Amino acid sequence: MSRYLDWLKEENMSLFTDFYELTMCASYFDNNKFEPATFDLFIRRLPENRSYLLFAGLEQVLRYLESVRFTEEHLAYLKTQGFNQKFLDYLRDFKFTGDVWAAPEGTVAFPCEPLIRLTAPIIEAQLVETFLLNTVNLQTMIATKASHVVNAAKGKAVIEFGLRREHGVDAGMKVARSSYIAGCHGTSNVLAGFHYGIPVFGTMAHSFIMSYENEIDAFRAFARTFPNKSTLLIDTYDDLAGAKKAVVVAKELEKQGFKLDGVRLDSGNLVELSKKVRKLLEAKGLQYVKIFASGDLDEFRIAELLDKDAKIDAFGVGTKMGTSADKPYVDVIYKLCETMTGRGKFSPMMKLSEGKTTLPGRKQVYRFKDENGNYTKDVIALLDEKAKGEPLLHKVMEKGKITISLPSLEEIRANAAENLSKLPAKYKKPTNAPAYPVELSQDLKNLIKTLKKKLLQTSQV
Amino acid sequence: MSRYLDWLKEENMSLFTDFYELTMCASYFDNNKFEPATFDLFIRRLPENRSYLLFAGLEQVLRYLESVRFTEEHLAYLKTQGFNQKFLDYLRDFKFTGDVWAAPEGTVAFPCEPLIRLTAPIIEAQLVETFLLNTVNLQTMIATKASHVVNAAKGKAVIEFGLRREHGVDAGMKVARSSYIAGCHGTSNVLAGFHYGIPVFGTMAHSFIMSYENEIDAFRAFARTFPNKSTLLIDTYDDLAGAKKAVVVAKELEKQGFKLDGVRLDSGNLVELSKKVRKLLEAKGLQYVKIFASGDLDEFRIAELLDKDAKIDAFGVGTKMGTSADKPYVDVIYKLCETMTGRGKFSPMMKLSEGKTTLPGRKQVYRFKDENGNYTKDVIALLDEKAKGEPLLHKVMEKGKITISLPSLEEIRANAAENLSKLPAKYKKPTNAPAYPVELSQDLKNLIKTLKKKLLQTSQV
Repeated sequence: MSRYLDWLKEENMSLFTDFYELTMCASYFDNNKFEPATFDLFIRRLPENRSYLLFAGLEQVLRYLESVRFTEEHLAYLKTQGFNQKFLDYLRDFKFTGDVWAAPEGTVAFPCEPLIRLTAPIIEAQLVETFLLNTVNLQTMIATKASHVVNAAKGKAVIEFGLRREHGVDAGMKVARSSYIAGCHGTSNVLAGFHYGIPVFGTMAHSFIMSYENEIDAFRAFARTFPNKSTLLIDTYDDLAGAKKAVVVAKELEKQGFKLDGVRLDSGNLVELSKKVRKLLEAKGLQYVKIFASGDLDEFRIAELLDKDAKIDAFGVGTKMGTSADKPYVDVIYKLCETMTGRGKFSPMMKLSEGKTTLPGRKQVYRFKDENGNYTKDVIALLDEKAKGEPLLHKVMEKGKITISLPSLEEIRANAAENLSKLPAKYKKPTNAPAYPVELSQDLKNLIKTLKKKLLQTSQV
Repeated sequence: MSRYLDWLKEENMSLFTDFYELTMCASYFDNNKFEPATFDLFIRRLPENRSYLLFAGLEQVLRYLESVRFTEEHLAYLKTQGFNQKFLDYLRDFKFTGDVWAAPEGTVAFPCEPLIRLTAPIIEAQLVETFLLNTVNLQTMIATKASHVVNAAKGKAVIEFGLRREHGVDAGMKVARSSYIAGCHGTSNVLAGFHYGIPVFGTMAHSFIMSYENEIDAFRAFARTFPNKSTLLIDTYDDLAGAKKAVVVAKELEKQGFKLDGVRLDSGNLVELSKKVRKLLEAKGLQYVKIFASGDLDEFRIAELLDKDAKIDAFGVGTKMGTSADKPYVDVIYKLCETMTGRGKFSPMMKLSEGKTTLPGRKQVYRFKDENGNYTKDVIALLDEKAKGEPLLHKVMEKGKITISLPSLEEIRANAAENLSKLPAKYKKPTNAPAYPVELSQDLKNLIKTLKKKLLQTSQV
């Protein structure tokens, strides 16, 4: 059998990296640089039209860190790319041996707050960068986007429907996972149902209707197969004519003791159509039939539909959410914040490049809450400071081994819902939300000042 | 060892589908609908700022069609989702047995032109829809975007650098593949080098520089490991100060008989900086040192840099290309265009939904060329018409078996370059390009007219 995904296996993920990670590591190796260093993974700024971040992707990061290895085949390839034998011998025995602190998946977070903090020999910490960024970028971007979509739907169900336009097979799976974490009710992706246990949903396509000579024959055929859970697509030829035929089939089902689940609108003026269809259904005593809407939906369109009182019970949201179409990436970065410079002492590091300044030192994020548990502000502080508030980062890996019991997907989803319920509503508006207060501690501010001065005075410039 | 990608294997791709494909198939099965049907896969419209499409993804589509199967584990899961045993027994023996015609990868194409035409029992044709759309969407979107980026670079090298922000592991691989097809010189993705044989490139990160006490120590350390192929990142603290240190290291390398490969700029005003750095390098007799630029580049930024005479020799293009950030999907669709309606006769089908009208019947695309082989226009015609021009669709699969020798990636890349050279320059402008002429044949127009009339007259409305 011909193969097309056999390379896509965990043992190959060591090579799923930017080439420069390997060249840098080769140079670290040659120059005997094995000292520990700490890297922060964080998101530099909020994407437009998002007022907070919902962190996702940690489970895959930790499983990767625990298992990353190089095979003989990999080493043979790297040899052809100019790496020397001593370095290849080092890679043969490579294991990640560092410590990791991280926010739990489903944490509500804000720009510049470390989401993952990793301390390891610099050569190890560098080697794993690309996979970490790739994983957190996709899942946090989608969880954040989907969370804003779910907010807009005001309690009505949102189903993730974007599989056909998501970026490949891994994206198809991770979008289903991340949007479920964010509060979507389910997905159309059957493999995500099979693997993650996410509820799967689906109706029918226009081609199904068209394959029958008459629209009503298609409705009847489908209802025969799924008498208790049919949602009929009514816009192939004309929505209202389609709705009338759906009513006929619903009445036929009633006679057999079944109930039509719903009708689906996929085009046209959803506000007007949904009102007309709802009226028709009610006139025929079919109040229980749900109206399901799809077609180019996102948080703004859903808000607009509900503002205009569209009679829609559930939303199928596809491409716009599944590709985070208005901003298909987050500014996630992984930056060195300290290195050990001899005698077991760590020195804080920072970068001054224009617009890319970073926060130095090993840090913790503290969240402050009011008497009802609602979030009031965060403070990014140095680890050795005495700070109040609830720390967001927890130890999740020690010497390369996962030290926590990884939460189930349902637990992560519940954690996200709980956290989102504690974020005051004003911070959840996709546009014109006030910035949630994230402060730097006085000690951190002092350190930044001192380091800037030092960097500008010394030979670095 | 903990697992995080074990589900991502070819045998699971049968479940990598929207749930509605399976419910529709279950209903087709129950209602004894096994008649052959033809589906067209095409892209409805050009994304903004693209003037043509570059088709990619066919190899993965064909390998999937040849190998898609259901396992006992899959069937057990589907049973929990309400499918009946007879249908599950059908799926146990499922194989795709259809015929496929397609344009070769690397074909320059335009909206509404069928890229893949598939004829199979309708139940089979329906079941494979989602995977086909997912695969062609990603690869054609990226090949198209990357081709426009390569055009903007006017012959200077473009390296695909977006791995960290591409949507998951499959996207990371497919973006490298598609952008190489489109003419990129290589990728930063080492696994794409290992698996696809794509040339890999990389320099160093700011963290490498920062891990040394002095910037020049970092340069020297890297140059020791890669004396003949070092590109030094000079903007960590101050670009020009960094450039001066790179000059020192270049001179030290010269004394040892080596040459510094390049310097890299990743921030700031690339036009001014590149001019200053080029001047400095020339003043020191280092004309051969290349200037490599990166940082938020896309086709528009590259065009602007070159217009302003930036002294840049190669571009590293990341997120904007790797996520097709300005339009992270294409309107790729898969539509029924005919079904067999008894006595071996096929009847053409079309859809009338607002803004979503489709072209009926089994079709071919004919490309017309001038005496130099340059493309002049395309005509979409019915298969049984006598049409001039070069047909774009070729038979690639018969009864579920691939009938062609699949081209190598290098062959596909060469095919794309050849095709792009035949597309007149005026059609390659990303903005304000005239529309390349795509006509419908008279017979196709007549058929559409007749079918519209019939659909509007009959009980469908």
